[in-house]
Amino acid sequence: MSINVIIAGFKGKMGQAAYKMVSEDPELTLVGLLDPFTDEKEIAGVPVFNRKEDMADLDAHVWVDFTTPKAAYENTDFALSSGFAPVVGTTGFTPEQIEELTELSRKKELGGLIAPNFALGAVLLMQFAAQAAKYFPDVEIIELHHDQKKDAPSGTAVKTAELISQVRTSKQQGVADEEETIAGARGAEFDGMRIHSVRLPGLVAHQEVIFGSQGEGLTLRHDSYDRVSFMTGVNLGIKEVVKRSELVYGLEHLL
Amino acid sequence: MSINVIIAGFKGKMGQAAYKMVSEDPELTLVGLLDPFTDEKEIAGVPVFNRKEDMADLDAHVWVDFTTPKAAYENTDFALSSGFAPVVGTTGFTPEQIEELTELSRKKELGGLIAPNFALGAVLLMQFAAQAAKYFPDVEIIELHHDQKKDAPSGTAVKTAELISQVRTSKQQGVADEEETIAGARGAEFDGMRIHSVRLPGLVAHQEVIFGSQGEGLTLRHDSYDRVSFMTGVNLGIKEVVKRSELVYGLEHLL
Amino acid sequence: MSINVIIAGFKGKMGQAAYKMVSEDPELTLVGLLDPFTDEKEIAGVPVFNRKEDMADLDAHVWVDFTTPKAAYENTDFALSSGFAPVVGTTGFTPEQIEELTELSRKKELGGLIAPNFALGAVLLMQFAAQAAKYFPDVEIIELHHDQKKDAPSGTAVKTAELISQVRTSKQQGVADEEETIAGARGAEFDGMRIHSVRLPGLVAHQEVIFGSQGEGLTLRHDSYDRVSFMTGVNLGIKEVVKRSELVYGLEHLL
Amino acid sequence: MSINVIIAGFKGKMGQAAYKMVSEDPELTLVGLLDPFTDEKEIAGVPVFNRKEDMADLDAHVWVDFTTPKAAYENTDFALSSGFAPVVGTTGFTPEQIEELTELSRKKELGGLIAPNFALGAVLLMQFAAQAAKYFPDVEIIELHHDQKKDAPSGTAVKTAELISQVRTSKQQGVADEEETIAGARGAEFDGMRIHSVRLPGLVAHQEVIFGSQGEGLTLRHDSYDRVSFMTGVNLGIKEVVKRSELVYGLEHLL
Repeated sequence: MSINVIIAGFKGKMGQAAYKMVSEDPELTLVGLLDPFTDEKEIAGVPVFNRKEDMADLDAHVWVDFTTPKAAYENTDFALSSGFAPVVGTTGFTPEQIEELTELSRKKELGGLIAPNFALGAVLLMQFAAQAAKYFPDVEIIELHHDQKKDAPSGTAVKTAELISQVRTSKQQGVADEEETIAGARGAEFDGMRIHSVRLPGLVAHQEVIFGSQGEGLTLRHDSYDRVSFMTGVNLGIKEVVKRSELVYGLEHLL
Repeated sequence: MSINVIIAGFKGKMGQAAYKMVSEDPELTLVGLLDPFTDEKEIAGVPVFNRKEDMADLDAHVWVDFTTPKAAYENTDFALSSGFAPVVGTTGFTPEQIEELTELSRKKELGGLIAPNFALGAVLLMQFAAQAAKYFPDVEIIELHHDQKKDAPSGTAVKTAELISQVRTSKQQGVADEEETIAGARGAEFDGMRIHSVRLPGLVAHQEVIFGSQGEGLTLRHDSYDRVSFMTGVNLGIKEVVKRSELVYGLEHLL
Repeated sequence: MSINVIIAGFKGKMGQAAYKMVSEDPELTLVGLLDPFTDEKEIAGVPVFNRKEDMADLDAHVWVDFTTPKAAYENTDFALSSGFAPVVGTTGFTPEQIEELTELSRKKELGGLIAPNFALGAVLLMQFAAQAAKYFPDVEIIELHHDQKKDAPSGTAVKTAELISQVRTSKQQGVADEEETIAGARGAEFDGMRIHSVRLPGLVAHQEVIFGSQGEGLTLRHDSYDRVSFMTGVNLGIKEVVKRSELVYGLEHLL
Repeated sequence: MSINVIIAGFKGKMGQAAYKMVSEDPELTLVGLLDPFTDEKEIAGVPVFNRKEDMADLDAHVWVDFTTPKAAYENTDFALSSGFAPVVGTTGFTPEQIEELTELSRKKELGGLIAPNFALGAVLLMQFAAQAAKYFPDVEIIELHHDQKKDAPSGTAVKTAELISQVRTSKQQGVADEEETIAGARGAEFDGMRIHSVRLPGLVAHQEVIFGSQGEGLTLRHDSYDRVSFMTGVNLGIKEVVKRSELVYGLEHLL
């Protein structure tokens, strides 16, 4: 049976990528599109709406939302109330809003997903890193991005380090009387482990987590070449929420 | 509380490495050593035995066994009967023997481990590969070994491919009308995925599992530089079997 | 002093990339654009032409050509005759044509470049590989491309292997009685070395050359993410041909 | 024709490795061994000496020296005076001593090599890095060593950075208003480029030099697993010095 999908915010960059992905997947059927400002009434046979209220009676299973932080909370509330399982990529929800929406999803017995990061590979890498750190507590992170990125280390690297520090006994790595002959050589220190940030033209977004132990090494690497990669995560989200009866925050909870 | 350990086959290469590892871990205490041919009666205060029967009354928790395929089955049976949880690195057990020993361990309410492979990093890599393949069905394996290795692909590569093929829908990778202008370029075919074997002097034992998906890649790599790496797995085995009440086959079941 | 540049074929994909690159480099000045079919007469102050004959009197130093195989030979001949050093990315020249154009360039004392491959990183990698193979004769090549590529191994991998085989004593790598338990595991054989072709979605164009020797390894890797990378080579070509007095075939001859 | 070789300091770790290497190479013949303290008179048919003076009349072409800094200068002087081309791995020569020995080698028309680093792969990597930096000025260095190494960055990484800075226009890499949210994330700064030092158990000695440019990347990596790798460089040294008529300092001058 096909899963019927609505896309809210289909005119934006992510919305367009979602439109393409849903259209091309034979297991998914597009049944409605929402954008407050468009004049279009229909695209390739799919009705287009300016107001979400007009969509309440659509025969849809999933509400995909790539709108604005402002609109997303109300949209998600509306989707759940209308019986649609939400898959939301907009950031900016408060913990209270997430709690409230989760509560509503339980009442409605609907699954749902709010995800700050749809890069499935990055989420898997973080999970594997946390599993490996139980057995290999010595670890360093190298993240590599294009040279226009301003902050270092990357948010993903810090999040990875946090997940690792939750499962391993805190330890200061390297030899005790280690000395930097040029400051910064050993990278950023986070709970005793080290994070290194490489910035070069040509790179996109890459991360390596390197574990070392007596006589062996284990390396996990994720390469992100293109925003289109997020759609693997959105696709997974759509297919998982219809089997669930509670909204979750974070793609990792659907793996 | 310290875990008291016996090592059977302590004169061999693996046995010696185990001796060193147990001696250096403050959480472990060596209480007996077994070798049928040695004349030594004691090493660094630890009694040495020629016959296992003389060890039945030792105050030991774990029996580490790196003997011969021939001796290992009887040793494991003896260990369980004497109340010692076995950690066995010898290969060559038949499925019937494993079943029988598992049954005995249940009766005795003792944990135990028989492991054909103690390389913890390799075991973790295989587990992660199987998890990732659920979401990223397109995968290739590159294994790299020293150039004196005779068989290709490696046993670990084939086992990894088997684990992957159990979780993903079988698929023929690459484009349908793909053409090798030199035979073998696309590697060994296993259930639609490809395995490539590199053989070069200087290399030890390495494996990469590369997953590709729209706009992203996920790579898992294990480097094995030295036999000493197996001891991380033996150490884990010793500390886990004392908490269990059933023998398992394969280190992965203790993770 | 600025280098004055003409771009022939500026409407194509490569021509557009060249237009952008030249426009943005303060050391280069665009003085003319050629396309047989366009109606435009001027773009951002630069005159546009339909016929090359009308460009003979332009005050230009370099003629960049990304036209068709058919037009490129005549264009290059015209450029040299008009006193412009050609930088040509079109393929399909015969050896006789190249010889003839080289002869003309010598008479005119003009530099010039005809290059089948402008990927500077790939050209450097091939050069380094040939240098390293003198000292490290044991080598394998892994090339990785997107899974829509039909031929394996890639042309670049074969060319790299050819260059290596010119500098090393031919040798059969691996152990003599090596055995493939699954056919193809050891890859494509080329003069005793092995080439492995990986095909996965998400990948673009990548190549690794791995040298192994007693106790050490040397790996050279090139990652090509985007066609825009060719422009580094075109830029280098423009700046080098004005210093030369002979046309060359292949970017490597300008390094 | 075979090259006849003397090894001074054959009892040390490097001397033993050299002994093994020379013995196993059919193109080399061992004709004398020197150690001041040994009682042996002969090893496998090769005469052993306690005093270098007794070796002056040996029919040797090359004098391999892995002695102490104290002895090495006098040994090298003696070797040249006796007509043997020296290959010296001992460090601690002053610039004056090197100049003096070079002068002597010219007079005697003998080749010779004094090398602080015999790791051929590392020397090649540095050369390639310097060549690539001419075309790809954006570069970062990652060096990875075992976690007992005290200083960071490694000497090889700093030397690599120096060689790169000699060929490229000095530039500050990364975006101008780049910000470290944890200090040290961007690594050690050397002439605008960045060096990152990873320290983990299990690692030996590894270095990556990563170049980035529009749409592409070029990575050079050297892995050093074992001291035995130095012997490739010593072997090369022996075979090259017999063709030369001047002593050089640094293996790179023989490539």
